[in-house]
Amino acid sequence: MGGDHGPVVVVPAVARALERLQGRKVRFILHGDEKRLKAALARVPAAAEASEVRHTDLVIAMDEKPAQALRRSKGTSLWNAVECVKTGEAQAAVSAGNTGALMAVSKLILRMAAPGLDRPAIVASWPTLKGVTAVLDVGANVSSDARQLIEFAIMGEAFHRAVHGVKKPTIGLLNIGAEEVKGHDEVREAAQLIREGGFGLNYHGFVEGDDIAKGTVDVVVTDGFTGNIALKTAEGTARFVAALLKDALTSDLQAKLGAAIAYPALKKMRARIDPSSVNGGPLLGLNGLVVKSHGGADAKGFANALKIAADLAASNYASEISQKMQTLTAMMDEAKVSKAEVQA
Amino acid sequence: MGGDHGPVVVVPAVARALERLQGRKVRFILHGDEKRLKAALARVPAAAEASEVRHTDLVIAMDEKPAQALRRSKGTSLWNAVECVKTGEAQAAVSAGNTGALMAVSKLILRMAAPGLDRPAIVASWPTLKGVTAVLDVGANVSSDARQLIEFAIMGEAFHRAVHGVKKPTIGLLNIGAEEVKGHDEVREAAQLIREGGFGLNYHGFVEGDDIAKGTVDVVVTDGFTGNIALKTAEGTARFVAALLKDALTSDLQAKLGAAIAYPALKKMRARIDPSSVNGGPLLGLNGLVVKSHGGADAKGFANALKIAADLAASNYASEISQKMQTLTAMMDEAKVSKAEVQA
Repeated sequence: MGGDHGPVVVVPAVARALERLQGRKVRFILHGDEKRLKAALARVPAAAEASEVRHTDLVIAMDEKPAQALRRSKGTSLWNAVECVKTGEAQAAVSAGNTGALMAVSKLILRMAAPGLDRPAIVASWPTLKGVTAVLDVGANVSSDARQLIEFAIMGEAFHRAVHGVKKPTIGLLNIGAEEVKGHDEVREAAQLIREGGFGLNYHGFVEGDDIAKGTVDVVVTDGFTGNIALKTAEGTARFVAALLKDALTSDLQAKLGAAIAYPALKKMRARIDPSSVNGGPLLGLNGLVVKSHGGADAKGFANALKIAADLAASNYASEISQKMQTLTAMMDEAKVSKAEVQA
Repeated sequence: MGGDHGPVVVVPAVARALERLQGRKVRFILHGDEKRLKAALARVPAAAEASEVRHTDLVIAMDEKPAQALRRSKGTSLWNAVECVKTGEAQAAVSAGNTGALMAVSKLILRMAAPGLDRPAIVASWPTLKGVTAVLDVGANVSSDARQLIEFAIMGEAFHRAVHGVKKPTIGLLNIGAEEVKGHDEVREAAQLIREGGFGLNYHGFVEGDDIAKGTVDVVVTDGFTGNIALKTAEGTARFVAALLKDALTSDLQAKLGAAIAYPALKKMRARIDPSSVNGGPLLGLNGLVVKSHGGADAKGFANALKIAADLAASNYASEISQKMQTLTAMMDEAKVSKAEVQA
């Protein structure tokens, strides 16, 4: 029921996802208003065949405050979808609903898997000159210590491998310079621990803001504050340049003529930065898989989020993460012991 | 002598700046190799008339490590330029040289004016849909407490008024959401203090990453870590979009034809995001005025940095800042006293 459009986007997206997942036996449980869902399914037989409807009257509105939504969330379509992951009936929940409510409900039902994490980390798939880079956290954890940054690295790496099929994704820590002496304590400590630790990560080193769009590494790790601001600054910049371009190409008759002739090429360019082709960010760090779709996503975009969920569910992603998290915990405990010894 | 080009850019820039400063009696002291400077001046009589040359053999290279450069900086062209500000012979120093060295030398010679500042803050003039927004700090102070953020707000406001002639520039604190409950402690504390304090600032509230390019406020305040990453992320995004556009418009004959017809409009668009039109970032927080030009700036860009220096030197900028800084110090002292009282 979530997102700006609800069933009229979600149901066609199921059919599109099935096409893209060709041959893989994926089934869908659609939570929400039975009447609306069945009406939408009647128009898309391929989706109807692979789906089952679970009725509920209750929905969380897109603009509800998360704390308020949480109090009355039980039995809503969002709650029921996440609950199915908890019971094992579903391998993943995908929602285009209220982000804050999805985070709060997911955390309440599934609980955090890693000790230091305050809230689930969100991954953004960022279009770059070389393809797609995963950037995390982009807005959940306001400040992150070295341990959390390493957790992001571990989770981001497993995500990128599962979804993009890169065997050994390269990892960069976002910083204000490439030199080891730069940056604040947390990021420098994280870099040292990753180098020392036995995580088997393909660590590249520090990267700077402009390295994201260059595609210098496959996974960019940063705290939620910096990541959120970087993401929104990039979106703002892209919109700014697009607005200037539109202004320029409609400024006079000659420009309009040129734009009309170049239209097919400009359209192809638009497709390369189409947000629907990278839609779908998993909430990482939970005991279970939850994928957030953009609220405004169209059927193509929501299908992409479904595909990401299916790819993650079919991968070794969860066991890879839990194994590396154990290494991390052991390492942090050891560091604590040796620190205590030094002090004693 | 600084920058990628040295006198062949600096000398023509002097003539351009004089044109833009028409009527204002500005004089220039050019520090560096006398032969090269005089040769360049011989070709630009307008610049020669307003300039005097101070010879030195010593220069700091663009790629020298700041710490190393600092040790042997005395008597270099960079040192001598900043020294002239200290002695009062010049009202401002402008350099396209090594940024780290310029910061270190300026700090050593002029000293920081504000108690909490570790290093000078750098302002970026950011092209937006509405004009130009000042963003600071963009890369000097790695972590900033609430007091430093307020100092940035005070300095950025005075800068924007002096250079862009806006009487009451609006100020936003960069955060991950517009609500008061969001963000980390430093940014929330700064917001509260600005609201309470008698700084006479036109405070707008929190802004997000995409508000920068929208031009939501005149001055965006943030710590040097986040500011640097936001700036470089925006540069990377703009280059990414430009690369895609170039790719698209050269992809086939039809696209090339369209681009050729739309060329005048595209050229005008380019001018709107021309970095030379916003070149020149003052190092704020020093006892004296130092303006950093981009190393790769052309004569037009370097002239812009000279114009900024002249505008700041002719304004009430310094006294405005020192007055508000006194208010801030009094307020912080009071807060300490009442805190101590509570504890007692």
